[in-house]
Amino acid sequence: MAVLVTGGSGFVGVNLVEALLERGDAVVVLDAGDLPRGAARALERYRSRFTLERGSVLDAGRVDSVIGNRAVKRVIHAAAVTSGPEREARDPAGIVDVNLRGTVNVLEAARRHGIARLIYVGSGAAYGESLYRLPRLYEGSPSVPTTIYSVTKHAAERMCMRLRELWALDIACVRLGTVIGPWERDTGVRDNFGTHSQLAAMAVAGKSAVLTSREIQRDWVYSVDAAHALAALLHAPTLGHMLYNVSSGVTWKQPIARWCDALSRAFPRFEYRTATDGEQANIWYTDRDRGIMDVGRLALDAGYTPHYTMDAAYAAYIEWMKKTPEFWSSESRANR
Amino acid sequence: MAVLVTGGSGFVGVNLVEALLERGDAVVVLDAGDLPRGAARALERYRSRFTLERGSVLDAGRVDSVIGNRAVKRVIHAAAVTSGPEREARDPAGIVDVNLRGTVNVLEAARRHGIARLIYVGSGAAYGESLYRLPRLYEGSPSVPTTIYSVTKHAAERMCMRLRELWALDIACVRLGTVIGPWERDTGVRDNFGTHSQLAAMAVAGKSAVLTSREIQRDWVYSVDAAHALAALLHAPTLGHMLYNVSSGVTWKQPIARWCDALSRAFPRFEYRTATDGEQANIWYTDRDRGIMDVGRLALDAGYTPHYTMDAAYAAYIEWMKKTPEFWSSESRANR
Repeated sequence: MAVLVTGGSGFVGVNLVEALLERGDAVVVLDAGDLPRGAARALERYRSRFTLERGSVLDAGRVDSVIGNRAVKRVIHAAAVTSGPEREARDPAGIVDVNLRGTVNVLEAARRHGIARLIYVGSGAAYGESLYRLPRLYEGSPSVPTTIYSVTKHAAERMCMRLRELWALDIACVRLGTVIGPWERDTGVRDNFGTHSQLAAMAVAGKSAVLTSREIQRDWVYSVDAAHALAALLHAPTLGHMLYNVSSGVTWKQPIARWCDALSRAFPRFEYRTATDGEQANIWYTDRDRGIMDVGRLALDAGYTPHYTMDAAYAAYIEWMKKTPEFWSSESRANR
Repeated sequence: MAVLVTGGSGFVGVNLVEALLERGDAVVVLDAGDLPRGAARALERYRSRFTLERGSVLDAGRVDSVIGNRAVKRVIHAAAVTSGPEREARDPAGIVDVNLRGTVNVLEAARRHGIARLIYVGSGAAYGESLYRLPRLYEGSPSVPTTIYSVTKHAAERMCMRLRELWALDIACVRLGTVIGPWERDTGVRDNFGTHSQLAAMAVAGKSAVLTSREIQRDWVYSVDAAHALAALLHAPTLGHMLYNVSSGVTWKQPIARWCDALSRAFPRFEYRTATDGEQANIWYTDRDRGIMDVGRLALDAGYTPHYTMDAAYAAYIEWMKKTPEFWSSESRANR
């Protein structure tokens, strides 16, 4: 009676694996890549309930055999390419393959093996332009996806809903907000490396951050909250809907300034300042302010309300940074 | 300076090929299947400007070599699987492959060879549920796709728009309404075989049609109109938009009764009646009434206004039926 997490070595994936193991689940990860540095140690105490299978969701036979051989009963499908414009221009086919074809492979295998529930980890990006136009996003708000990432995440979610109906399979889809927290790194498939993670890496390395003068308005969600919300959806006795927002549900105030401040207190060698006229910032900023993704449905159906405030999230994140030094080692691609 | 039509042996495809050849274009068809019976004769007079290449849009190398070797300058990408529920439950991967991965293959080849314009033949199905909720559909109306067909057509269209921006390629997308007319047949990838075509096949075979008591409210468009609209978009000097509805723009009145009536006058052996209580209709009916797809933008930007009224379309269709008897021969799959 195991839970399969595809993409379980990724940012959200490792958080999910931790949350599920904490709850007592047996967990099988299918991922084309390795766990991040430090994760093996963090998961050590759950060794008897944890299995890592290397493989891609593009390999339908591999997906099928992992589900079949590992007695998988529930699936969280989180494997995806999180593409930015450069990759979208260079390799649209690769994004379509993983995000759509990979999803069909997982769904087909789930059906063949009669799994009890599948959670598709979609993205708030599926709202597309509505994120920037509407002050509050409900699951029924219009979707206007424009990037290949958002188009494929939206399409995969809609395919899940269609096959849920045609196959009478228990499937629910999630739209994840912007996640910050432990285990975010450059895995080669995550192009929009978060501002918080970049600053965290600089703080650990004792570098100086040059910020732009603007802040970012978003309903960030701490990765631990996101993971527990997904686990709650996976295990809720019944789900009344096909689609759930997962976010903190509130806009964080001055998130970048407060994060820099928290980091500089924890890592005294870390300095930060705002770029002077004509100077370039040396970290990448997420593009645009967004409306808030409402999480009322998640609370109602799965009984989960995210509980990390911004400050609590920052404190927990820093605590994790301190106790996971190997994640930040210089060989790690997180420090690029 | 040829035009490539992918899916050029299909229903809309053959109409397109005829319209382009009539305009004086050189036309290359890439299609996994053969032309319908009768088409070779119909295209005979354009032989010097027409080439048929067998091959699938899934074969990226084949797409590339056809565009490269045939001096293709413009592309109409019409190859698609038009799926119904049975296929969607049985082979979602196959639909994703052709409708999305195939589209990426065509776009990539078009970019490599610097084509001057690409028209993506999408579908009104991309509006999804909005078709049944809104009285009039404009190109900016919300899309709520729910079937795998509509999801893949919507996603392919959005990918075209994204790559248009990233690659600075001249791409326009079309949402085709419900098309009736010559050359519709069962090619194995067209599940929702049109009511008009079924009745036409019965009329030619001298069979009796048993109808349901309901009519269908739709803004049908005659295939010749649809084809000329696409050709106009392909050749318009510039296009101000990325997306165009192509439909007749008007709801046809009593379309099934009038079609049966027209057929029975042209084919006296054909009989039709409404099913009595408890009796099954023996033809398949399109599912639901739809709002009208507005064609103002098409007129404005491409200078094309569909000109076949329902009665004119029926007369032209019947004339075509009479002069293309081989299309209806008993070996043809059209008569299933």
